[in-house]
Amino acid sequence: MRILLAGLLAATALPAFAQPGPRPNQDELVATLRTDALADEQAWRITEDLTTEVGQRLAGTEAEARARTWAVQRLTALGFAKVRIDDFDMPVWQRGREAAELLGPYPQKLAVAALGNSASTSEAGITAEVVSFADLDALRAAPADQVRGKIVYIGHAMPRTEDGSGYGVFGAPRRQGPTIASQKGAVGIVIRSIGTDREHRNPHTGVMNFADGATPIPAGALSNPDADQLERIFARGQRPTLRLTLVSKVTQGRSGNVIAEVPGRDPTAAPVLVSCHLDSWDLGTGALDDAAGCGIVTAAAKRIMDAGMPARPIRIVWFGAEEVGLFGGLDYRARYGKQPHHAIMESDFGADRVWKVDSRLGPEREAEAKRLQRMLQPLGIVPGSLTKTEGSDIGPMVADGLPGAALSQDGTRYFDVHHSPDDTLAMVDKKQMQQNVAAWTAAVAVLAGPVEVRPPARRRAR
Amino acid sequence: MRILLAGLLAATALPAFAQPGPRPNQDELVATLRTDALADEQAWRITEDLTTEVGQRLAGTEAEARARTWAVQRLTALGFAKVRIDDFDMPVWQRGREAAELLGPYPQKLAVAALGNSASTSEAGITAEVVSFADLDALRAAPADQVRGKIVYIGHAMPRTEDGSGYGVFGAPRRQGPTIASQKGAVGIVIRSIGTDREHRNPHTGVMNFADGATPIPAGALSNPDADQLERIFARGQRPTLRLTLVSKVTQGRSGNVIAEVPGRDPTAAPVLVSCHLDSWDLGTGALDDAAGCGIVTAAAKRIMDAGMPARPIRIVWFGAEEVGLFGGLDYRARYGKQPHHAIMESDFGADRVWKVDSRLGPEREAEAKRLQRMLQPLGIVPGSLTKTEGSDIGPMVADGLPGAALSQDGTRYFDVHHSPDDTLAMVDKKQMQQNVAAWTAAVAVLAGPVEVRPPARRRAR
Repeated sequence: MRILLAGLLAATALPAFAQPGPRPNQDELVATLRTDALADEQAWRITEDLTTEVGQRLAGTEAEARARTWAVQRLTALGFAKVRIDDFDMPVWQRGREAAELLGPYPQKLAVAALGNSASTSEAGITAEVVSFADLDALRAAPADQVRGKIVYIGHAMPRTEDGSGYGVFGAPRRQGPTIASQKGAVGIVIRSIGTDREHRNPHTGVMNFADGATPIPAGALSNPDADQLERIFARGQRPTLRLTLVSKVTQGRSGNVIAEVPGRDPTAAPVLVSCHLDSWDLGTGALDDAAGCGIVTAAAKRIMDAGMPARPIRIVWFGAEEVGLFGGLDYRARYGKQPHHAIMESDFGADRVWKVDSRLGPEREAEAKRLQRMLQPLGIVPGSLTKTEGSDIGPMVADGLPGAALSQDGTRYFDVHHSPDDTLAMVDKKQMQQNVAAWTAAVAVLAGPVEVRPPARRRAR
Repeated sequence: MRILLAGLLAATALPAFAQPGPRPNQDELVATLRTDALADEQAWRITEDLTTEVGQRLAGTEAEARARTWAVQRLTALGFAKVRIDDFDMPVWQRGREAAELLGPYPQKLAVAALGNSASTSEAGITAEVVSFADLDALRAAPADQVRGKIVYIGHAMPRTEDGSGYGVFGAPRRQGPTIASQKGAVGIVIRSIGTDREHRNPHTGVMNFADGATPIPAGALSNPDADQLERIFARGQRPTLRLTLVSKVTQGRSGNVIAEVPGRDPTAAPVLVSCHLDSWDLGTGALDDAAGCGIVTAAAKRIMDAGMPARPIRIVWFGAEEVGLFGGLDYRARYGKQPHHAIMESDFGADRVWKVDSRLGPEREAEAKRLQRMLQPLGIVPGSLTKTEGSDIGPMVADGLPGAALSQDGTRYFDVHHSPDDTLAMVDKKQMQQNVAAWTAAVAVLAGPVEVRPPARRRAR
């Protein structure tokens, strides 16, 4: 990369910074940036440092506040412009003591984690017979007197898929199960974790909300092996009794989005938004979900900034409070959602390889969209739709119709780990993460418009 | 199998049970038994049922007592003779609340489990700076004033090996670390788990004993990812402060060995002892360690019993209280260790495939030892030593010089799971377990001597 840039620069005497610089053949420049990014260390460093020096970053807590302080320091140190926090208030659900213990017929402890927004039990927990349902429809179909006074269990094991699409239907027991169980008079609910690791006792948490009018009840997730255990007990014709202790509390707290920019040559141009979320669930250290995403998009932006100056600003947003309700994305939308954006993008699906690119830039930008596809193909990324895009925090703005692109990551093992104690740096595959950085660097270089290369003296130290 | 036996039986009019039956060509019979065992369901059933219907079986507790009751019922139902319990008293260490929380420089929780015989902290725990050592030798070499008043951490990550031999040297921090740390004035110790799963947050417990004169201190194991986290903090030049809460208690309890027999044609002949241990650590359900072993040896004995009657009795022992100090093995040795045994054997290394056979039957029994090797080779089992054998509960009797054989299992992934919350049925590979049953069936058929086949009418239902 340096050699190529030096070659490109050698031919030209350069004026001062922010003056027009040399504009090399852009396909060649993107190709070089892309290749260089395959050896990226920045994304890993951000992921390692954030998960080590902060750890879990539950939204609205002091841990997430420490993460914002850390993020401002790091983004500033990396040389980004306009580093700032947009903060906002929010309710904060936090777990306390948790336990699930079968009292009969076979006394034993099960590994459990409360779902976000679970009602709290007392320290003594609740004790009731467990009634089992194969899936959400079976619970829906059950007469209330089969459920009343009991703890509902829902199975419905989620399969692995490359595109992660199982999360929709197989995630339904988490999102809707507690409400339906409550409406039928259940005193609590435990679901099989919405997770695809069938071997390790890692319960997967995740948010849910009780529908209006539904009385909140304690709601937890068992690890897959513990769910198997419970199902084996039902298979023996037994009626297990469970003591479920899920202590939690709700307070008021503050979260915020951390924002930084790579200046564009035209400061008034609509920015390219590249994003991730800074908050994590509290059980692991949020390495795959989503420190890695912050590492990837930030490393990509940094590479472009170090190479020169794009036509349009690149706006980096590390959203707050994604996990518990997209609060950061909604705050951003409320503040900036009516302003033009050239493209909005988010990395929030781990760090495994990008395998597909979708975009929705509009019919008038088809050439740009096709160039985006073309510049990603050398990384083994298949061209996807030109009429759809997606993202988590940016989802509401995607729904609003803002233009954007989506780099789909291999989700085969993502739900092995997601929202569980096992989401730590140990799960991040550096090689695949580097492919992500390459993909993002190429994509953002295309979308942020022609990059004028910077004279070597002004290129920033890493 | 049934067809072959029917063929063998067809030629002979049979007298009543316990009269001499037909004695088919023994190599052919062993080969048939071996092949038939590759479809075994019994070992899996025992493993599934024991781990489901009892769960964890910590030695000396009511859970282990329930397991003995379960075992007597099951062994009786399977048709074994002389089913009984030899019980004995023992001290019982039991864990209470556990937590490890870094207070600084980066506040976060770490996954920890107390080691067996750890001293108890108060409910409030102890708080001290952590001092890090790469291995046990580094701790040994450290001046006491570097350790005094601190919590010692020892790294020394254990590698995977097929023969599991890493457990010796890499297990030393668990066995000796607490004593050495205590002798140098440490207030506590946390080690990197003696476990080879580097990705999941499964702390591995295990027993240790303080040497005479050493003051017991709290001693725990961090999961590998948590140990990595701590090491990354040290790598940043930081001095972490840890609050360590490891509450435990010691009471007096009762354990026991569950014993059953396959009668031999000569009731006075020295028995072939096939064994496993019934107790488990408390974090998982002890599926690989060692319900599977009980399943394997019992299924093998059952297959021989169902086929006919061996020359020598087969004595099945499900030892109690192996994990916490081989108490069951020592009790058996005290009662029966002076009596002749034709061979002693134990399965206590999970359920992955048998890859090697060692034996020590004595020079005068070389032909028998070679036949044992030969009858196992079709299962892909390599012939090992003729002058050594091993086993856990039977280890003291092996040291006493009793003859025996050892079927070495593939231990590559055994220490991923061993003594951790992840030791559940989900980790058992049924196909490999069936290969174990085939190996044990063949080995025991060889060692228990010529098997006379039983008339079909007298063969027992499974």
